[in-house]
This record gives sequence, structure tokens and C-alpha cells, in this order.
Amino acid sequence: MGLESYFPVWSKLTQLQQSKLTQGLVYRQVEKGTLLHNGSLDCTGLFLVESGQLRAYILSDEGREITVYRLFEGDMCLFSASCMMRSIQFDITIEAEKPTRLWVIPVEAYQSVMEESAPLANYTNEVMASRFSDVMWLIEQILWKSLDKRLAAFLLEEAAIEGTLSLKITHETIANHLGSHREVITRMLRYFQSEETVRLSRGCVTIQNQEKLRRLVD
Amino acid sequence: MGLESYFPVWSKLTQLQQSKLTQGLVYRQVEKGTLLHNGSLDCTGLFLVESGQLRAYILSDEGREITVYRLFEGDMCLFSASCMMRSIQFDITIEAEKPTRLWVIPVEAYQSVMEESAPLANYTNEVMASRFSDVMWLIEQILWKSLDKRLAAFLLEEAAIEGTLSLKITHETIANHLGSHREVITRMLRYFQSEETVRLSRGCVTIQNQEKLRRLVD
Repeated sequence: MGLESYFPVWSKLTQLQQSKLTQGLVYRQVEKGTLLHNGSLDCTGLFLVESGQLRAYILSDEGREITVYRLFEGDMCLFSASCMMRSIQFDITIEAEKPTRLWVIPVEAYQSVMEESAPLANYTNEVMASRFSDVMWLIEQILWKSLDKRLAAFLLEEAAIEGTLSLKITHETIANHLGSHREVITRMLRYFQSEETVRLSRGCVTIQNQEKLRRLVD
Repeated sequence: MGLESYFPVWSKLTQLQQSKLTQGLVYRQVEKGTLLHNGSLDCTGLFLVESGQLRAYILSDEGREITVYRLFEGDMCLFSASCMMRSIQFDITIEAEKPTRLWVIPVEAYQSVMEESAPLANYTNEVMASRFSDVMWLIEQILWKSLDKRLAAFLLEEAAIEGTLSLKITHETIANHLGSHREVITRMLRYFQSEETVRLSRGCVTIQNQEKLRRLVD
């Protein structure tokens, strides 16, 4: 099954440590839309994405959302095991954006190896630093970038992930990614349409002028 | 000098590791306003705050600022050594908000001990997780809280830090903490004054009704 493909430091673990991580491993196969982790309510374990796509987001009291980062094939999700570290004091929700296959390492197993293995602890550090960078990027976007630029960047990113210019996505979903309201997104998309940057149809946003979107982002 | 007071895991390090950390140690004493670390331009080393107060903030292309977190006596600043981890890809600026005495551990020393010591790597993890939580809190504030609530929370926090209700602070400085503009802060403070929540005078904001500010925050 190959945990070594997820952990660059695999060969630096002892055999005992390797088998500790492998033993409790659980394989899951989930539908699109499945809620895999719900804030501090559960401490599910570490997710390793075999295929598919996960979205990590935060939720306001009023039910508004914003996407914090996404996880793809080969990625490890640390915050689904947030109970592992006392100092993690925020709630992240993780859902499958596509049908997803993943491995779950139980928290106790990971924690006990991390406590004694400097390589695994340092690797975990790098993973956290990488998520930290995503979050700092997000703050800069929210603070200094106007919504038209953020929407343009989001559409380009989606097109790159999906490999198509015809995005099957609702305005509501886009609003939840960007921490905005559906009405605001609809207005902005209509403006993009009037500029012939995108074409809107039922449940679909088609990018017509990629170049124009890119110029908007830069 | 007591590095052990900064590191709860000190006793779990070998003597060699302890002396590695102690050897290159540099003591600095800086004035209020000193820029200690400037984004990715330098990789100064890890700061240990002996006394005083540091502010970590990010800067937009247009020179706008927002405070990401603050460091007080006994705190360790990881991101002044951001070159230590490949995955840290954001620029943070660190300045002394008060006259500050601090110890600097050179990056190479810290890194070489962290690479072999699971306790130090795990402790570093906890410190990063704690900063991560600060940043997630900040995102929630920016996204879901209106500026009046954020300003109220900031004034209460300042009063708690300074131990006085008479805050010597300019509107410009408050704006830089909150990622806002001076004009916007001035307008909001004048509104607070009209409600008899604060009293404004030259270079000074005095909290008149703490209870009212607290109710605003909740």
C-alpha cells in the first residue's frame, strides 16, 4: 500500500515505528460532499489522500464559509488530528469535494511515533509550515485584494484543477470558497459576463477570455 | 542566563545539544520602534523575549499593515528564522513595540539541534501551532467581525497589556494594527466618543465605559 510514498522521511523511521504507523491504518472511500472532519467535535486521525480532493474551510456562527486550503492526491491533512497538539485552537471542517479515497492514521499511533522520532516531527513541522503559508496568503488576499481579483484567481485555479474552462459550479459554492455572499458573487459574475470574460448558464461558469482574467489577477 | 526558562523541553536535550544552543547566543537590547526582522530579506535567528514587547505584522504592496500577533516576555519568535523551514513562504516583519531585551539563537545552531532532537522538534511544532491559532483567529475577525467590534476588542486588549485605561496611541497606529485606514479609525473613534465609550485627546484614547466596549465585543 506504500505509506512511504506519503512520507519522504519514511526510510528514517525504525521498523517498529513504521509498523506502528501501518498497523492501525484505516482505508476510506467517500462520496463527494462527505463531511470527514468537523471542527473540534472529533479527532479523526491523519488523512492521507490517495485520490480525489478535500476542502478545508472555516465556518462563521452565521453559517458563512471560506476555503482555507485544498488537499489533493498525496497530501497529508494534519488538522483532522488537531487534538494531537494542545496549541491548535481553531476549528476546521473538512469535506470531500470529489469522490475521494484516503488512508487514516489513528492519532495515538502518529503521536507516539512523532514524540520519539525527530525526522517525523520535523516533517510534520514542514507540513504545518506549508499550511501556515496557505493561510497567510489567504489573509493577504482578504485584506488587500478586491473581490474581482479574488474571483478571477479562483476561476483560473478551478479551471487548472478541473482541466476545463467550463466549470460546473454554483454561485453559492463560489461564495463559500471566497467567504462572500451569493448575491455579491452573482453580481460580479454578471459584470464579468458583460465584459465577455465569462459566459454564464445554469450551474455553469465558462471562461471565455482567460487572458483577461489573468490580467485582472496581476 | 537560563535558556531552560524559555524551553519546557530543555531537560530532554543532551548536554551537547544544550551547549550548541547556548554557544552562539547573542544578547540584544533595542529601542522602541526598532525593526528586528524584515520579511524574507534576512534570516536573523530565533528571538527569545527577555523583556519588552514585539509586534509581528504583514505589509501590503501599498504599505498597509496588519498585526498578526504579539510577543511578550518569555515568548519565542519562530518566524524571524523563517529560512529554517523551506515551507514557510510568507514575509513577516517584526518590530519592537517597547524597549526590548532579547536573546537571539543563530539559525544553524537551532536547526542542527532540531533535526536530531524529537523533543525540540515537537516543541517547535507546538509554538508554530500556537501562532497558527492566532492567525486563524485573525482570519475570523477580519471576515466575520465588523470593524467596531474589532476596534473595541483592540482597545480592551491594549488596556489589559498596558494596565491603564488611558492609551497613548495614535489613530494611525491603531489602523496599522487592524489593517484599516486612519480616516476610518478616526471616524469610528469619534462615534465611540459620541456614545461616551471613549474620550479622545491629542495622542491619547481614554476608555470611559469598559462595560460598553465589552458588550460590543460579545
